[in-house]
Amino acid sequence: MAHTDPPPVTPVAPVIFETSPDTYRHWKLQIDAAVATLSMDVREDAGLSPDYRLKLNSYDLGVDIELADAVQRLRFEHPEVHAVIVASLKERIFCAGANIMMLRGSTHAWKVNFCKFTNETRLAIEDASQHSGLKFLAALNGICAGGGYELALACDEIVLVDDGNSAVSLPEAPLLGVLPGTGGLTRVVDKRRVRRDLADFFSTLVEGVKGKRAVEWKLVDAVYPTSQFKAAVQTRARALAKISDRPESGPGITLNPLNPTVTPSSLTYSAVSLTYNREKRTAELTVQAPSGPQPSTPDEILKAGDQFWALRAFRELDDALLRLRVNEPEIGTVVIRTEGDPHAVLAIDETLVKYRKDWLVREIIHFMKRTLKRVDLTSRTFFAFIEPGSAFAGSLFELALAADRSYMLHDDKKTNVVALSQLNFDLLLMSNGITRLRTRFLGDDMKLAELIAHEGPFNAAEAEEAGLVTFAPDEIDWDDEVRLAVEARAAFSPDALTGLEANLRFAGPETMETKIFGRLTAWQNWIFQRPNAVGEKGALQVYGQQGRPEFDWKRT
Amino acid sequence: MAHTDPPPVTPVAPVIFETSPDTYRHWKLQIDAAVATLSMDVREDAGLSPDYRLKLNSYDLGVDIELADAVQRLRFEHPEVHAVIVASLKERIFCAGANIMMLRGSTHAWKVNFCKFTNETRLAIEDASQHSGLKFLAALNGICAGGGYELALACDEIVLVDDGNSAVSLPEAPLLGVLPGTGGLTRVVDKRRVRRDLADFFSTLVEGVKGKRAVEWKLVDAVYPTSQFKAAVQTRARALAKISDRPESGPGITLNPLNPTVTPSSLTYSAVSLTYNREKRTAELTVQAPSGPQPSTPDEILKAGDQFWALRAFRELDDALLRLRVNEPEIGTVVIRTEGDPHAVLAIDETLVKYRKDWLVREIIHFMKRTLKRVDLTSRTFFAFIEPGSAFAGSLFELALAADRSYMLHDDKKTNVVALSQLNFDLLLMSNGITRLRTRFLGDDMKLAELIAHEGPFNAAEAEEAGLVTFAPDEIDWDDEVRLAVEARAAFSPDALTGLEANLRFAGPETMETKIFGRLTAWQNWIFQRPNAVGEKGALQVYGQQGRPEFDWKRT
Repeated sequence: MAHTDPPPVTPVAPVIFETSPDTYRHWKLQIDAAVATLSMDVREDAGLSPDYRLKLNSYDLGVDIELADAVQRLRFEHPEVHAVIVASLKERIFCAGANIMMLRGSTHAWKVNFCKFTNETRLAIEDASQHSGLKFLAALNGICAGGGYELALACDEIVLVDDGNSAVSLPEAPLLGVLPGTGGLTRVVDKRRVRRDLADFFSTLVEGVKGKRAVEWKLVDAVYPTSQFKAAVQTRARALAKISDRPESGPGITLNPLNPTVTPSSLTYSAVSLTYNREKRTAELTVQAPSGPQPSTPDEILKAGDQFWALRAFRELDDALLRLRVNEPEIGTVVIRTEGDPHAVLAIDETLVKYRKDWLVREIIHFMKRTLKRVDLTSRTFFAFIEPGSAFAGSLFELALAADRSYMLHDDKKTNVVALSQLNFDLLLMSNGITRLRTRFLGDDMKLAELIAHEGPFNAAEAEEAGLVTFAPDEIDWDDEVRLAVEARAAFSPDALTGLEANLRFAGPETMETKIFGRLTAWQNWIFQRPNAVGEKGALQVYGQQGRPEFDWKRT
Repeated sequence: MAHTDPPPVTPVAPVIFETSPDTYRHWKLQIDAAVATLSMDVREDAGLSPDYRLKLNSYDLGVDIELADAVQRLRFEHPEVHAVIVASLKERIFCAGANIMMLRGSTHAWKVNFCKFTNETRLAIEDASQHSGLKFLAALNGICAGGGYELALACDEIVLVDDGNSAVSLPEAPLLGVLPGTGGLTRVVDKRRVRRDLADFFSTLVEGVKGKRAVEWKLVDAVYPTSQFKAAVQTRARALAKISDRPESGPGITLNPLNPTVTPSSLTYSAVSLTYNREKRTAELTVQAPSGPQPSTPDEILKAGDQFWALRAFRELDDALLRLRVNEPEIGTVVIRTEGDPHAVLAIDETLVKYRKDWLVREIIHFMKRTLKRVDLTSRTFFAFIEPGSAFAGSLFELALAADRSYMLHDDKKTNVVALSQLNFDLLLMSNGITRLRTRFLGDDMKLAELIAHEGPFNAAEAEEAGLVTFAPDEIDWDDEVRLAVEARAAFSPDALTGLEANLRFAGPETMETKIFGRLTAWQNWIFQRPNAVGEKGALQVYGQQGRPEFDWKRT
């Protein structure tokens, strides 16, 4: 046979998502007053698997984990930074995109999770720009292909060196038979508003577009000759920094390691625990409400730093979700519980809302928001079980709203309650641009007004009546009902559930963000299953090898 | 082996999309003054293939072609009809949904095209309600499962018999491992605004929901005991008819057969021709502008009937597109040309705009709109070639705007022109709810204002400058450039192009309609590729046979 299979990529799980600048292998972070420079310098031999080499600043999940970490740390640790130059330390190469050998050797599930995480990272860059005033400039010093250009597209501005050679390109479709699926197609037409016919031409042009034409077509904001490039990048970055509303100076807070206790069947953090039952393909996710005195002013929050419950608990939740997604593919259903004092959560929410304009409080609220979005975008079933002793209040009640269903025990004593805070009505927006409550009661403004007007907590009967929970079984039915719900779920096709949830969770408007996860990702995942891409003679499989791809020419 | 493969479904192509009530095999159309009753009575033995039987009012493409035809004819032939009862003639059975044996035995491409057409039919029902004042009432006299309920969801109102047994259900995910992909998931949460957690529960419940609960959850509008059902349906239908703005009485116009000349390599209608080059996997689609005197008042248009160019040409175009999709799967690129007098097109556009409130003119405009949407949703590449003698003006220029790219010959004499009419700025909306021009120049209101202000046609240089065409090669370059464009396109992965086009064509807002084709359909197509659905032990393949499905439990 002329064709030889690509080498299989060694399984890399478990993946750890925590990192810090002193251990980065692929990025250099340099801070010069209000402008930071985050430079890509990928180590070829330091991929997550030894089966591929990360040539030409191509990336794998490990490279993107460092990028995500850097953006996060700039937000929390360096409030004095107002703009970030995303650059490369490799000469005449910005970034060649996702590593093709990595993609080729990966399972379908790995491809999907890799794309999901890299999409979230790029959206986090845009979130930092829009909500934290941290502006990004992509400084393209050379080759900028595929995922490299998609990274640039996530920045506020893109400048390209005009050296007669350097171009931006999205060669995925013509070269590999797949899509520029890290937001590329969506951002080109929806964010940069490149005309759709020009975008069509551009996305089929392996060599890409350079120079003046790249500016005219709005693919980049400016081009500069090599001699002026560095100075122009600095000038533009300083200008971007000026429009930021971040504080003039620090200090920030340090994001220390989370240090969970890891056993073969559990992850235990300070406020979050995740326990797996692999036989039943379920997990139990429990979040503890805060206890003891809590900071109630920006100064106290700054002092508490990463130990402030609102930040600590959501960082732990975020980390647990990421590990679950990548390291525990067969866990299909996650039961969410909360424990502790709901009033303590409401008190923290009140503080957060009161000081929402403080830079750190703002960061914390948006971090909570991004973590909750991570729940919405996790392709596992979530059921919230609301039992006496739980703390489903305010920001923690968002977990019940994010869940596919919620079951609330209707106890005779009516001690089991849920409660809302201002955060449920306002700041914790979903990817679709509206709150979970507004999505839940789509178009029913009266219902929202009633909920806002409601004072105090809701017992089970009230919560069910108000539509805040799905079911409220009494003590006689509870055990059977929740057990059967979980068992029934575990018997369904995992793929059908993924599709079902991806459709039902996002009622209402679509945004560029939901288009990336809905339209673009869903098509990409389809293509990632098609023989024309991943079959023995598919374009992704034979790229760079002898022989050309062989296609089934039927259009679908 | 315990498992036996399902019998293969005999290829049924070529499919003919034209039909008429006197030849319907599956529906009965009865008109009683302002209310029509369209009753499903599927003939088990009259499927498009002899390899399955259409039991329990289940349907295949042939059944849906008749439904689409009936809705179309009611609009044009019966303006006096103001409301339609969608009913069943089978006792205690409304509709069991798409036929499972048909789906199981179908190729991936067939499944996708089947779903696309059925989605378009349901959207045409909603279009008739929204834009023509033709209201629909689903009268569910019994079992209403899967695609049966999705058909009901497309109606304005749904009433269900309350006989202790009849329920609505979406059992696709739990039974078959696929999605309710004919708009079901989207319409439940976005149109009927069923709460997402209730929708989740409902969509995993094989037996469905009946009686009072179905009303409380907003799955249906009302339930009636068997004894009152018929009368209640009549009463509600009359009430719906009253809110219609259709004319009190006819006459309508007859939609006569199109009678194209069919050869192995071409379809030739009066104003449209489609010629295949199967070796190159291309087709040439040519539309002729009108010639001779044209009607210029509603009375003259009524008299011209289906021979009025605006209706005739677009009916022919619609039919050609449908045949292309299903019968010519390997034709990847379609070159669109127009011929004739652009002024004649502009004159007709002017008449249409002037009398847009006339019932028939309104129908014609919306039919043009739906046909152009069919282009947007056809998974083939469209290139418009604009050459001297062409008639890319107004409504015909929409074909150039719908194309993935347009090439306009820059002739020395500047005789090659394109032109806009009011229809380009207003009535011919895409599925995303805005015009093709607005989608093309997303967010650039100034550009739109300039185009509106522009008087007269645009020559090639002007059209290129205005962004109305992609490229304007001169006579020296033309032949090579257009030939190379088509050849290059033909070499790319058909699947990558489908994904690329589905993303680039729909910049801007999303609507329920685009969510159905973007989010829902893309996920469904993914699932239609997954072994958990279509593998030897997949849920769709083993349903109704001995043995249970076997799943790969990994969540993706």
